[in-house]
Amino acid sequence: MSINQNLSMRKKYIITGCAGFIGSNLTNRLLQNSNNFIIGIDNFSTGKRNFIWTALKNKNFFFYKADLLDLNKLKTLFSKGDLVIHLAANADVQYGPIHTKKDLEQNTVATYNVLEAMRFNKINKIIFSSTGSVYGETNKIPTPENAPFPIQTSLYGASKIACEGLITAYCDAFNMQSIIFRFVSILGENYNHGHVYDFYKQLINDAKKLTILGNGKQRKSYLYVEDCVDAILLALNKCDNKINIFNLGTDEYCELNSSVKLICETLKLKPKLKFTGGERGWIGDNPFIYLDTKKIRSLGWKPKLNIKDSIIKTVHFLKKNKWLFNKKK
Amino acid sequence: MSINQNLSMRKKYIITGCAGFIGSNLTNRLLQNSNNFIIGIDNFSTGKRNFIWTALKNKNFFFYKADLLDLNKLKTLFSKGDLVIHLAANADVQYGPIHTKKDLEQNTVATYNVLEAMRFNKINKIIFSSTGSVYGETNKIPTPENAPFPIQTSLYGASKIACEGLITAYCDAFNMQSIIFRFVSILGENYNHGHVYDFYKQLINDAKKLTILGNGKQRKSYLYVEDCVDAILLALNKCDNKINIFNLGTDEYCELNSSVKLICETLKLKPKLKFTGGERGWIGDNPFIYLDTKKIRSLGWKPKLNIKDSIIKTVHFLKKNKWLFNKKK
Repeated sequence: MSINQNLSMRKKYIITGCAGFIGSNLTNRLLQNSNNFIIGIDNFSTGKRNFIWTALKNKNFFFYKADLLDLNKLKTLFSKGDLVIHLAANADVQYGPIHTKKDLEQNTVATYNVLEAMRFNKINKIIFSSTGSVYGETNKIPTPENAPFPIQTSLYGASKIACEGLITAYCDAFNMQSIIFRFVSILGENYNHGHVYDFYKQLINDAKKLTILGNGKQRKSYLYVEDCVDAILLALNKCDNKINIFNLGTDEYCELNSSVKLICETLKLKPKLKFTGGERGWIGDNPFIYLDTKKIRSLGWKPKLNIKDSIIKTVHFLKKNKWLFNKKK
Repeated sequence: MSINQNLSMRKKYIITGCAGFIGSNLTNRLLQNSNNFIIGIDNFSTGKRNFIWTALKNKNFFFYKADLLDLNKLKTLFSKGDLVIHLAANADVQYGPIHTKKDLEQNTVATYNVLEAMRFNKINKIIFSSTGSVYGETNKIPTPENAPFPIQTSLYGASKIACEGLITAYCDAFNMQSIIFRFVSILGENYNHGHVYDFYKQLINDAKKLTILGNGKQRKSYLYVEDCVDAILLALNKCDNKINIFNLGTDEYCELNSSVKLICETLKLKPKLKFTGGERGWIGDNPFIYLDTKKIRSLGWKPKLNIKDSIIKTVHFLKKNKWLFNKKK
């Protein structure tokens, strides 16, 4: 291959939330190919410097600590990129009603800023991490991408549907291309919030008891982060439509009680379980999430890990990274 | 009826956008009942003082010039109300790509502020004007409320779906009740933007020619404003569910060419028509809007005016109110 060909294959990815859970996994994967350059942006609100420690030493990684609410800064940082993978977000569904402005600002307004910075720099491709929460409490299960018009039940879901709307309207208005993924909960290396984290945190403090939000009968879907990264990269290579929307998840779901049992077995603990009761763990919690993933599978993708193995891997990761539970981290 | 009974029947409505097209019609109608008190809010960005001239003299009408982006002011103004009818919005679909922030601020963020001011004052009922534009270019026609998950094609639609999401998530989180209306285009008294306005404005300047955006074959639905007000008031009395979503429109649609013909006939003009071409009048224009209105009809509502008569009434209104075409109005 000539040098010229090599140069033309180089891609400059802008990744927002590059130090976050999915962002850091994707960053590390993309840097395995020396044709890839990454402009990584994170404000470390939930992202961790530790997750991009290796990347920071890579000459193809250009890191900027910045907040997506600073549109002028974004316009400058985006000037060197070819496409945007926008993963930065407030991902806490549970605390929406406590700080009602957070989802609006960090998700909806931040996404607007990303789109404006793209437009300013004539970047016309965006990959976006949406969520299965946008289906609210749909009764179409497994839920396909074209399920009946959903009613939002969480401020998080509301903010993500607002982002999806902005992105697709920008695609129409400014001739952009988008790939939107509606994720189930992701598990694996660099996981740092969610039920496995919460349970382990409780058990570190007191191995004899465990409080579970809801009645434990919530049925949820999970996906291993490496499978999630595989799907993103595959879709990135294969999608030609102006707008591409994909559910991402495994072809199974798991009752919260089974997950609790597995976590305790993996840790070799037998805590006394206490349930707060009710079908839902919190306001806006969807008691049954199970997405239809035929569309992404039709591209040739399938997950390598099942839910059980993903949970075990996550527990092992947390065991090896107890610093994640320190207040200052 | 005793004085006490009479007092208990009194309702204090907060109406945002009270000087706008639909807002002024609703305000004037509600003031016909002396048990109704109205706290009316408008910033006159598109609303007109003329539209609430009579209301301003009514002792039951309390008008405040205020901008919905001023949350602190809203919290004060909302302190005396029982329920909120939130109609204020940027309603120009066409110019979304020109000023991309307008829909986000005046619709999404403004609605967030309305909900926060409600929460602050423990007001738990909201009526909201959404739009048929949230269905994007759905291929389910006539379009029911539970049509397949739509893809937004305009910044206006994107902002309104964001508002709907915020409202329903607030209903879940803070025990509020909402009635959301997805309108087709509204016609009638106090109409001051849209295709009839645009055409008439052109014809005032030059009666011999008329430029039409698109190929003229766009099929659209319209509803007479008094029928729209009837539906709002009926649903307000009849809906008990936490979340109530209704399409509002007539059981017909009309090709733009027919509308042009009717407008010209009513004005007794024969301009030369010039078409800009294409299926859509502008980016994000939906070439075929026709909503299924079975749900609102099941409450006993039906429109009194058809599209033809609504257009004629609108032309007559504009003829009598040429001040609307002055730059300073």
